Amino acid sequence: MMSRLAPRWPAWLFWWRAACAQGVSAQQRTWAGASRIPGPGGPWGATGTSPLVRRGSSSAPSCAPEVMLTRERYSVRRLPFSVVSEDDLAALERIVPGRVVTDPEELEAPNVDWLRTVRGSSKVLLRPRTSQEVAHILRYCHERNLAVSPQGGNTGMVGGSTPVFDEIIVSTTLMNQIVSFHNVSGVLVCQAGCVLEALSRYVEERGFVMPLDLGAKGSCHIGGNVATNAGGLRFLRYGSLRGTVLGLEVVLADGTILNCLTSLRKDNTGYDLKQLFIGSEGTLGVITAVSILCPPKPSAVNVAFLGCPGFAEVLQTFCTCRGMLGEILSAFEFMDAECMKLVGLHLRLACPVQESPFYVLIETSGSGAGHDAEKLSGFLEQVLGSGLATDGTLATDQRRIKMLWALRERITEALSRDGYVYKYDLSLPLDRLYDLVSDLRARLGLHAKHVVGYGHLGDGNLHLNVTAEAFSPSLLGTLEPYVYEWTARQQGSVSAEHGLGFKKKDVLGYSKPPEALQLMQQLKALLDPKGILNPYKTLPTRT
Amino acid sequence: MMSRLAPRWPAWLFWWRAACAQGVSAQQRTWAGASRIPGPGGPWGATGTSPLVRRGSSSAPSCAPEVMLTRERYSVRRLPFSVVSEDDLAALERIVPGRVVTDPEELEAPNVDWLRTVRGSSKVLLRPRTSQEVAHILRYCHERNLAVSPQGGNTGMVGGSTPVFDEIIVSTTLMNQIVSFHNVSGVLVCQAGCVLEALSRYVEERGFVMPLDLGAKGSCHIGGNVATNAGGLRFLRYGSLRGTVLGLEVVLADGTILNCLTSLRKDNTGYDLKQLFIGSEGTLGVITAVSILCPPKPSAVNVAFLGCPGFAEVLQTFCTCRGMLGEILSAFEFMDAECMKLVGLHLRLACPVQESPFYVLIETSGSGAGHDAEKLSGFLEQVLGSGLATDGTLATDQRRIKMLWALRERITEALSRDGYVYKYDLSLPLDRLYDLVSDLRARLGLHAKHVVGYGHLGDGNLHLNVTAEAFSPSLLGTLEPYVYEWTARQQGSVSAEHGLGFKKKDVLGYSKPPEALQLMQQLKALLDPKGILNPYKTLPTRT
Ligand SMILES: Cc1cc2nc3c(=O)[nH]c(=O)nc-3n(C[C@H](O)[C@H](O)[C@H](O)COP(=O)(O)OP(=O)(O)OC[C@H]3O[C@@H](n4cnc5c(N)ncnc54)[C@H](O)[C@@H]3O)c2cc1C
Ligand SMILES: Cc1cc2nc3c(=O)[nH]c(=O)nc-3n(C[C@H](O)[C@H](O)[C@H](O)COP(=O)(O)OP(=O)(O)OC[C@H]3O[C@@H](n4cnc5c(N)ncnc54)[C@H](O)[C@@H]3O)c2cc1C
Repeated sequence: MMSRLAPRWPAWLFWWRAACAQGVSAQQRTWAGASRIPGPGGPWGATGTSPLVRRGSSSAPSCAPEVMLTRERYSVRRLPFSVVSEDDLAALERIVPGRVVTDPEELEAPNVDWLRTVRGSSKVLLRPRTSQEVAHILRYCHERNLAVSPQGGNTGMVGGSTPVFDEIIVSTTLMNQIVSFHNVSGVLVCQAGCVLEALSRYVEERGFVMPLDLGAKGSCHIGGNVATNAGGLRFLRYGSLRGTVLGLEVVLADGTILNCLTSLRKDNTGYDLKQLFIGSEGTLGVITAVSILCPPKPSAVNVAFLGCPGFAEVLQTFCTCRGMLGEILSAFEFMDAECMKLVGLHLRLACPVQESPFYVLIETSGSGAGHDAEKLSGFLEQVLGSGLATDGTLATDQRRIKMLWALRERITEALSRDGYVYKYDLSLPLDRLYDLVSDLRARLGLHAKHVVGYGHLGDGNLHLNVTAEAFSPSLLGTLEPYVYEWTARQQGSVSAEHGLGFKKKDVLGYSKPPEALQLMQQLKALLDPKGILNPYKTLPTRT
Repeated sequence: MMSRLAPRWPAWLFWWRAACAQGVSAQQRTWAGASRIPGPGGPWGATGTSPLVRRGSSSAPSCAPEVMLTRERYSVRRLPFSVVSEDDLAALERIVPGRVVTDPEELEAPNVDWLRTVRGSSKVLLRPRTSQEVAHILRYCHERNLAVSPQGGNTGMVGGSTPVFDEIIVSTTLMNQIVSFHNVSGVLVCQAGCVLEALSRYVEERGFVMPLDLGAKGSCHIGGNVATNAGGLRFLRYGSLRGTVLGLEVVLADGTILNCLTSLRKDNTGYDLKQLFIGSEGTLGVITAVSILCPPKPSAVNVAFLGCPGFAEVLQTFCTCRGMLGEILSAFEFMDAECMKLVGLHLRLACPVQESPFYVLIETSGSGAGHDAEKLSGFLEQVLGSGLATDGTLATDQRRIKMLWALRERITEALSRDGYVYKYDLSLPLDRLYDLVSDLRARLGLHAKHVVGYGHLGDGNLHLNVTAEAFSPSLLGTLEPYVYEWTARQQGSVSAEHGLGFKKKDVLGYSKPPEALQLMQQLKALLDPKGILNPYKTLPTRT
């Protein structure tokens, strides 16, 4: 098998091949220098575990400064909804007994977003357990003209999950039951409040994987994922939730339960209504249950982490990789040197390869470890031999794989510790993807702390982030509409995967024509005529 | 490489392995007996080519009996649309000069469906070339309250593409231009009237494949595929059009052009409007252009055709195959012995393996021929060794692969030559998938000519077909609602991939709850308030 390979192999590859041939369980292999397999507490950070996100809690670190109220920071006017009265509280208490939260302290966290950029002033949070309870809540709110803000794990990036004024927060936290899992088809049916990571664990124990994965997995809910049409780290391989979500149960604004919770791979009976709710960010209905197709768990997973000398080389590495790894390629992520600096600075994660201007993380998932290793070694030989990558490390066991992934997954977290974050999540043509980062870095100079670029390169998705000590209207003015206009000129998307929520709702027009906006408004009016569902979100403010 | 395999190999596998090892370009290999590689005009049928469908024409064979008018066969009442006047013809002639067809002979074919089960009496067919022309047509029809029936390749299976009364046929035949193709991303943008097979050829020459393939490829249009949310033969691998279609341009009922023709892999700016039109069967808008993501062309494709002793073995073969072939599995189709009999009888295609109660066609597509062959041989050894399959043949070159595929793809055609076809396209739980076929066969006895089952097993999709000398209301009464009730009891779908069109519109309720029906009606009313787009289709008759 091995002898068929080209003779021009660098030394490290021989080392690795030798290790394989000897059946050595080589946990992680590094090249271009001495082996850097870290011990516990070594260069990988203090703990060795990877708390990818502030798990199970979206509360602010106690030392964090208070977040300005959304209604004060932004010029936004409260719409004429009713105000929650004592009678309302009593009625709601009858619907979800013991699960009506009004304690101001308890309400602090759910009023603030993960990024600590927006803050609402809701005085009530409800914790339904069943779809019927959600239906009762909405029927009541609809009748009383009370506005509602649906909330999952509150990890959203665009201020969609927190109230803007005093909307009632309807949290899915207690809707965390798995309804069924089919061992042959891999179809999982569960309530909307199941945490993604818990679902992952559940299906992995049964030989399957969730078709999506994101850095927020420890907190985000599957209902929130569907409501935002989350992309994430497996999009390249398993595609969009629009294909993998098989069915939804949704409660409409007036409390009607719409049961489209089918488990069928194919169903062309009439319009596919569930699509309306995927990505609608809680503005058209509250998702209460999800049916999703889980692919079989790959028996072999490898992660390579490479350093690249320039962005052109990152792109060429991607093309090479797609050609040579084909169907086993499951992720292609990139980050720039600034990102690496920040995860080092704030999270004490060490760079596992030589310092480089760019890094890529490549994951393969396949059904034949030997075949995959052979494909991967051919690819690595090619990119390292040709100088597309200057250094690299490979992980094949779960722990090391997680460590490499942490470097990429925890960038969001590192950024949020760096200060106020101006976040842009753009789809751009691959060849122009990084130009905007360089351009902005020059443009902003010392006005920004950091300007970083990373993201799901394989999907043409750039996360452009700018950090500063604090929120500043003038910095915002330099960034916007500049970033959006730049993106629009490239026919890009001003929100690739994060959605629009509160903070991006007015930029929709950069990616969609007026006819589309009008139809969206009509759909909103059809499904939520009183506008009680997540008001001030997703659709532009009507002027 | 070979020596690692188990020693318990049957003789044929040794033959094959020997052939591989000797570098013999074994074009097609058969087992369990003498090699059956056919010469031209041999058991594969007369021509050696595979005219998978009556290409480029949906006209009836000249000898075929006249098809009864839909309005006479079914109790359906014309809605109060205007009737096309001489003034209208003059106005339409100004919009699409020289492309207004009124010749009764030319109108015969587009008035009748591919299956020859429904017939309209349209007196006008229009052949626009551009979206602007479609927009003008619809604006005019909308104002004049003239009903319209959009038509692509007219290969639909549910009577959706032909008028029911005198609707104006808007054909996309001349809208067959490719707009752009991106060699790195694989994004194809084209007009709606491009024939699927032509697109396949185009992208394959550039190293990509279309993410969908169907037996009707020689005639069906990409716009029709999207309008029906076609599934087909590659669904198992590349998933639904809901994931692979990146953008659409659609003309709305009032002539508004909705341009959502983005080429971005990800775009979460507002509601995903294109999803409304995917699978809406021409009832919500006319699709004029499509942007679609084409996956890279696999460098190695293999097709195995196996005979299985029972349906339980078919299912076990599927599970084994999914486990052992993993990411290279690209199709898993099945057909029963009756299907094989019909393709033999009507198309003179010979069975390439020993006669069996069931046959499966398994396709692999991968990036490493050697790896794929190794995986496949392991799998074949397993299923043949364990008796899950009793005989098999393998094709690795394009011509033989096409021949094996023809057996499966041309079943629809063979059935249509067998008489009047009662067609059911169901999603069912895998373990009950074939029960309905056996059940009906017993139930119908001599009332039917043939009762056959085949389909996309990997997607849980059964095509159940019953043939008879001619249409008979009493046979229909025996079949319906029985088939639908049976399906509903299994929580199945009464239309997995064909849609509802005219013939299935009233069975929607078997797979969708009343709340869903109501929302569909509301969407129709929102997008097409006058109901001029493909009336009498998709949504149930209001009573
Ligand atoms: C560290 C980190 C990494 C991330 N990585 C990614 C990534 O790779 N890709 C990506 O796409 N996103 C990513 N995100 C963003 C975020 O995690 C996703 O948007 C996630 O899907 C949100 O889920 P949630 O349960 O936290 O929803 P929330 O934040 O609670 O809500 C998000 C939106 O959905 C609505 N909503 C929530 N639940 C429901 C429901 N049941 N019914 C109706 N509406 C509802 C809310 O009203 C709000 O508008 C990341 C976030 C963090 C913090
Ligand atoms: C031999 C054979 C094999 C087949 N195999 C499969 C299969 O494997 N999987 C599968 O899903 N289907 C299959 N079909 C069914 C059929 O081919 C598909 O439904 C196909 O997608 C229809 O495309 P078309 O261009 O022929 O559309 P048509 O038949 O012309 O139209 C179908 C419907 O779409 C509407 N429509 C067409 N074009 C437009 C447009 N531009 N805008 C709006 N509405 C439009 C029509 O009004 C009609 O309601 C098969 C058919 C045949 C004859």
